[in-house]
Amino acid sequence: MDGLKVCVIGAGSTYTPELIEGFIVRKKEMPVSHIALMDIDPGKLNIVGSLAKRMVEKAGINAKVELTTDRKKAVEGADFVLSQIRVGGLPARIRDEHIPLDFGVIGQETTGPGGFAKALRTIPVMLEIARDIEKFAPNAWWINFTNPSGIISETLLKHSRTNIIGLCNVPVGMTKSLATKLECQPQDLFLTYVGLNHLSWITKVCMKGDDVTKQAVKLSLKGRAKEDAEWMKINGIIPNGYLHYYYARDKVLEDQKKAEKSRGEIVTEVEAKLLAKYQNPNLRRKPKELEKRGGAHYSTAAVSLASAIYNNKRELHIVNTRNNGTIPCLPADCSIETNCVIDGRGAHPMTIGDVPLEIRGLLQAVKTYEELAVAAGVSGSKKLAFQALMAHPLVPSSTVAKGLLDAILDANKDYLPQFRLKR
Amino acid sequence: MDGLKVCVIGAGSTYTPELIEGFIVRKKEMPVSHIALMDIDPGKLNIVGSLAKRMVEKAGINAKVELTTDRKKAVEGADFVLSQIRVGGLPARIRDEHIPLDFGVIGQETTGPGGFAKALRTIPVMLEIARDIEKFAPNAWWINFTNPSGIISETLLKHSRTNIIGLCNVPVGMTKSLATKLECQPQDLFLTYVGLNHLSWITKVCMKGDDVTKQAVKLSLKGRAKEDAEWMKINGIIPNGYLHYYYARDKVLEDQKKAEKSRGEIVTEVEAKLLAKYQNPNLRRKPKELEKRGGAHYSTAAVSLASAIYNNKRELHIVNTRNNGTIPCLPADCSIETNCVIDGRGAHPMTIGDVPLEIRGLLQAVKTYEELAVAAGVSGSKKLAFQALMAHPLVPSSTVAKGLLDAILDANKDYLPQFRLKR
Amino acid sequence: MDGLKVCVIGAGSTYTPELIEGFIVRKKEMPVSHIALMDIDPGKLNIVGSLAKRMVEKAGINAKVELTTDRKKAVEGADFVLSQIRVGGLPARIRDEHIPLDFGVIGQETTGPGGFAKALRTIPVMLEIARDIEKFAPNAWWINFTNPSGIISETLLKHSRTNIIGLCNVPVGMTKSLATKLECQPQDLFLTYVGLNHLSWITKVCMKGDDVTKQAVKLSLKGRAKEDAEWMKINGIIPNGYLHYYYARDKVLEDQKKAEKSRGEIVTEVEAKLLAKYQNPNLRRKPKELEKRGGAHYSTAAVSLASAIYNNKRELHIVNTRNNGTIPCLPADCSIETNCVIDGRGAHPMTIGDVPLEIRGLLQAVKTYEELAVAAGVSGSKKLAFQALMAHPLVPSSTVAKGLLDAILDANKDYLPQFRLKR
Amino acid sequence: MDGLKVCVIGAGSTYTPELIEGFIVRKKEMPVSHIALMDIDPGKLNIVGSLAKRMVEKAGINAKVELTTDRKKAVEGADFVLSQIRVGGLPARIRDEHIPLDFGVIGQETTGPGGFAKALRTIPVMLEIARDIEKFAPNAWWINFTNPSGIISETLLKHSRTNIIGLCNVPVGMTKSLATKLECQPQDLFLTYVGLNHLSWITKVCMKGDDVTKQAVKLSLKGRAKEDAEWMKINGIIPNGYLHYYYARDKVLEDQKKAEKSRGEIVTEVEAKLLAKYQNPNLRRKPKELEKRGGAHYSTAAVSLASAIYNNKRELHIVNTRNNGTIPCLPADCSIETNCVIDGRGAHPMTIGDVPLEIRGLLQAVKTYEELAVAAGVSGSKKLAFQALMAHPLVPSSTVAKGLLDAILDANKDYLPQFRLKR
Repeated sequence: MDGLKVCVIGAGSTYTPELIEGFIVRKKEMPVSHIALMDIDPGKLNIVGSLAKRMVEKAGINAKVELTTDRKKAVEGADFVLSQIRVGGLPARIRDEHIPLDFGVIGQETTGPGGFAKALRTIPVMLEIARDIEKFAPNAWWINFTNPSGIISETLLKHSRTNIIGLCNVPVGMTKSLATKLECQPQDLFLTYVGLNHLSWITKVCMKGDDVTKQAVKLSLKGRAKEDAEWMKINGIIPNGYLHYYYARDKVLEDQKKAEKSRGEIVTEVEAKLLAKYQNPNLRRKPKELEKRGGAHYSTAAVSLASAIYNNKRELHIVNTRNNGTIPCLPADCSIETNCVIDGRGAHPMTIGDVPLEIRGLLQAVKTYEELAVAAGVSGSKKLAFQALMAHPLVPSSTVAKGLLDAILDANKDYLPQFRLKR
Repeated sequence: MDGLKVCVIGAGSTYTPELIEGFIVRKKEMPVSHIALMDIDPGKLNIVGSLAKRMVEKAGINAKVELTTDRKKAVEGADFVLSQIRVGGLPARIRDEHIPLDFGVIGQETTGPGGFAKALRTIPVMLEIARDIEKFAPNAWWINFTNPSGIISETLLKHSRTNIIGLCNVPVGMTKSLATKLECQPQDLFLTYVGLNHLSWITKVCMKGDDVTKQAVKLSLKGRAKEDAEWMKINGIIPNGYLHYYYARDKVLEDQKKAEKSRGEIVTEVEAKLLAKYQNPNLRRKPKELEKRGGAHYSTAAVSLASAIYNNKRELHIVNTRNNGTIPCLPADCSIETNCVIDGRGAHPMTIGDVPLEIRGLLQAVKTYEELAVAAGVSGSKKLAFQALMAHPLVPSSTVAKGLLDAILDANKDYLPQFRLKR
Repeated sequence: MDGLKVCVIGAGSTYTPELIEGFIVRKKEMPVSHIALMDIDPGKLNIVGSLAKRMVEKAGINAKVELTTDRKKAVEGADFVLSQIRVGGLPARIRDEHIPLDFGVIGQETTGPGGFAKALRTIPVMLEIARDIEKFAPNAWWINFTNPSGIISETLLKHSRTNIIGLCNVPVGMTKSLATKLECQPQDLFLTYVGLNHLSWITKVCMKGDDVTKQAVKLSLKGRAKEDAEWMKINGIIPNGYLHYYYARDKVLEDQKKAEKSRGEIVTEVEAKLLAKYQNPNLRRKPKELEKRGGAHYSTAAVSLASAIYNNKRELHIVNTRNNGTIPCLPADCSIETNCVIDGRGAHPMTIGDVPLEIRGLLQAVKTYEELAVAAGVSGSKKLAFQALMAHPLVPSSTVAKGLLDAILDANKDYLPQFRLKR
Repeated sequence: MDGLKVCVIGAGSTYTPELIEGFIVRKKEMPVSHIALMDIDPGKLNIVGSLAKRMVEKAGINAKVELTTDRKKAVEGADFVLSQIRVGGLPARIRDEHIPLDFGVIGQETTGPGGFAKALRTIPVMLEIARDIEKFAPNAWWINFTNPSGIISETLLKHSRTNIIGLCNVPVGMTKSLATKLECQPQDLFLTYVGLNHLSWITKVCMKGDDVTKQAVKLSLKGRAKEDAEWMKINGIIPNGYLHYYYARDKVLEDQKKAEKSRGEIVTEVEAKLLAKYQNPNLRRKPKELEKRGGAHYSTAAVSLASAIYNNKRELHIVNTRNNGTIPCLPADCSIETNCVIDGRGAHPMTIGDVPLEIRGLLQAVKTYEELAVAAGVSGSKKLAFQALMAHPLVPSSTVAKGLLDAILDANKDYLPQFRLKR
């Protein structure tokens, strides 16, 4: 068979129809002949996978859709591997959101101690996947959107020999949103995009070569929290929405303490409804409700990235990759989220140089945390894990760091083989 | 006259007898023939200066002690200028300690928004002094211990052509304390001392060439707050006492909220008693009570530094000077507090190289704040001032940063000509 | 008038028909309405300019072609300025080739002391042009192919506020040649292109994403001098042809000593014949003989670059621009010749990172020479000029450097106002 | 036994009496009780060792002097290891001086292809010594003056876990010579000493804190070759004498071609006479003729360095050690020759920062060569060996590099096990 093999790890996710739709839309430029959908949960895989089969069939694509719980088999010979796993599922996410709150710290899926716990759970599984890809699909392009995407990218860049590219839907979302506001096409815009996954800033916006930053900042104020809007007005820079956790630390904490449900609890309900919907045998397209789930643009981001590689397009995409001097005030071997030329050889960052002082300190502080989180997640060292938490700007004391670490290790003990081994 | 001229700016400070004692003790190696004591407050200058005269006379030193409120005259032809000013006096310090608390932020003289306010008040005066030294004593060695010492050093390194060396008594104090604990002489110890003024770490302790770090950390635990002790035990590093404000942010804030008096209020009382004591015409030596004031070792630090320069000693001293690649993860032109060889040419830092990850993030974040603080203090830009506060790890949101900035600018408006000019 | 104004400085050059042809070929994507051809030599300008007029007319383009010796007028309001001057003309070039030989050093137009002399003559004129552009066309894109292109680029990047991009036809030539050898289209290739103008290496060749470096090196051996071929076989890297002057220093010197005519003398003859041909009123296209002149691909390089900017194309072009961390072992503010994304905002280099050791030393040595050459050319300092020559790897001793410098300053005294002013 | 054990590797060298005298002079500060003299040549060892015994006896030092050909035994338990080997002896040196001349390249013991051949022969033996020290004297301080000292230092810094410090007598000699010229004591001088072993520059001279550079340069002109003097006058910098090979490449080559004897041949005669002299049983002190041999100050350099370590002196010595950011334009892990504070923990470089442009290019080029030479010497890769020679500024073409490499590998085949293994 001559077409491409695409493998999706964690295919039981309700996001999968997004991806399938992406491949359907781009069927002319991406001749996919084999889609291997893999998950460790056969029940969810069956529900989501059956919908995927119906969608592919309806689209008239001559591709085999295979459902499997055997990861090696799924990976073998793949041209593209897409990974979107959630170790411990939504119950673990809900714990990640609650535990920090018990210590007076913001609880969030990817930022702060919650993201750290998620990283510790996820790293061992990602390293296992890496071993499979190195063995069974050594030339595959691996597009990961498992969170925390920056930490996972850095782990795999440092500890695997795979062609890993880290992806997030935020940059695509920010670009599309700006295009709408500026009444142009996304490809008319060039964003000077600086930073890390979920810790990035757009310091300049050019439309067909003209600097429209002021206008872009002004148009972006609407709908932003007042703390972020204030920051934007003074600095003339558009921050990633996740920076709200830093620019309004006090406010977010107050709100979270008062909230009835965490985001994870809400998502659990959304998921249940979606899965029920997916089981309708007449459903043959991505349901509209999926958009509420939060993964908008993942399809666009992932499939257009794969196509840019496959077709040697030399398009610009914002992805997570090795710094390599792009931002000289960060280590050369760390991961950053940055504008890259994408071609058949992968992602090639464009030089950035000195970053503005008003973002440098937080950028360097969080990257230090991330490097320690990678080291802790790979090694299972409690010392490194403490250092990572302590290095995080949201953690207010060593007492809290210590308490949080014990609580995180205890609550996640079923998912932390690297730490078990050290006991 | 052949001897040295020493000029003290801010000589009305109750610390001055410390300095005078220092010159008396080292009279054989430092032939001082002229001590110019300058202050803008003639009352305090007269009290403190008269004691100084009695001390010098009693010591049998043939040196002229001159009291003056004319800074140019005091500086003219000086071989060493020592500066220890407090712009706004203790009332301003007390405001610095209180204003942040109103916004739920730690209030401290040198760390956080309090130190920032102090920097804004102090920078314009230090630049004026710099202009005088450039003109009237261009070859003088300028030893500054006015706080925030790191920010002031960076200001003068970047914005003057003087031979500035920044000094703090903490490194001398830490060294003496370790020597006592390890039962050796201070000069037997070599400390790998990394960081900034009031943000430093001793990552290694060597005694006559032997690595005694473990023992030193263990002996240093006693008397430290439990948050700091916890951190020290895990990391095997001895932090500067001021790191308590970072390692126990939550606890310090709670304590400060409950405290009856701020440190500035206590010091005000100590000062009043000291000044009363100084007026006793029979007092001819440094009174013991001065030690409570908090400036222990300033005399040792300052006068032994001056002597190392004058006598081309090639001694090691820990001072604030230009980074110049000592710590490669910080800008080359910023100030750091570091081990230097001191000789007739001044301070020459010893290479440090990569710093441990567990301290890097905070180090880089605070240095970013300091660079912005210098820029704000020199320019009087409200934008830069907001950026500085926002970059500080203790400030929890842009709303707080904005509120704090307005409060600081308002409370200090009599001392901020650089901002007035911009209105 | 709505179309673009293009200004050519040094339009009396025989290369000009190349450029005109380029604009004719791309008339649909570049709506040029005004071509200002400027030269200080009215005779040559008239010959070349008349041919240009006939070419434009024949192509049916509705554009005004203006011939002028008034540079300010030519520049005013231009959208694109192209500069291709030769200060001192071919006689100066011939001197540049001969003087070094008198001192036992390779004589070459752009490499070594010959290129240095050319830089000294050219820098003052380029700075004058810069002043005009800053004043009369501040938003213009300035594409320079005046040699030595790297040194001129660095001069203008450091000492002007213009949108300067340095261009050379070698990268386009190498790419086209490789495409022919590999039987693909130039745009199918991605070259990892590292270095400076006339001092560059292709360390990797990818064809539609596949690494074809070995094959490309092998195919490139044919036609190369044996010294270069030897080097290529061992290192697996394709060097710029100008590296022959370094890889075969001894051989080139012997050959030059024996040569009857220098390249400049040959070119003088070619030029005369070309100009004679241009005067034929029936000639309405670029004559074939122009290809012998050595400027093949200049048209492609320059006009396609202008079009990429005008049309915000995001194409990759290899140009001379500010390093900005692309090659971390070189200063951030120096010029390099490197792969850039070209869009409406100009040239944006792609990160390179560590360069192979086998090229690093020479790269750093020649860049040091170039920085000194820029400083000498701008300042007119004899000390800096000596340092520049002494820093050049082809200069074998301080005696030779001194002798060369005197000879160069003397022979070019009519063209070195910056040095005259210092006498 | 309580005293120190000192081990000398290569003790059959005629330099050994220098070292013995050094330990005699410093007997009060260095309580040596055991001197192990090791050499692979029992004949020379016996002659030199017997003299050493007589010298120690005459000095009334209660130390065991042991002669041995068993390196492990000699090293075992040593506090200080001093190494001064010459692999292949003087015959190999003479070849190193002659082979390059055959290819029109300067032939020199440590600079250029001659030094490269010496490095290839020496590296395998030094790595064997390193293995012994790691096993039998892991805490020993290893002071090496085997040439090429910079390359050997870098090899051992990168490929051993020993406390290696590289030493050369040139810095001590330059300091003493300057002190004589400036009529002061060596310790009154502070030299800003920048560069590599045999490739260094004194860019500033301070006497008791006063900048006396101009005077020092002027006084240093006398006795220097005219090419070097010219360079010095223009640049105001004092170069290491070995820079003559770069500043007068053409002249040196001419002179060498005409010379009747190479330096190695002259030294062979000096050595024979010295050894004859040493055999006189009445000789009990270092003979004056030793000074002609060229190793003046080695004793001072080596024994005062050992004493600074043993006595935790915090003295400044210029040694070869890890760069670690001292010179930011060179890699952090390379060796440099630089001013260090010497104490019980070893050598701690003082920050240098940016180096003057007029020395930067050559410095970077030669360091690139050195890194390749280390890699070639350790790996036995012919490709790396070619790259090293090709990177050397004195090698004029790839043809010459290839010819030289073949000649060097052939002439030294008995001493290059690392290359033999690859055949």
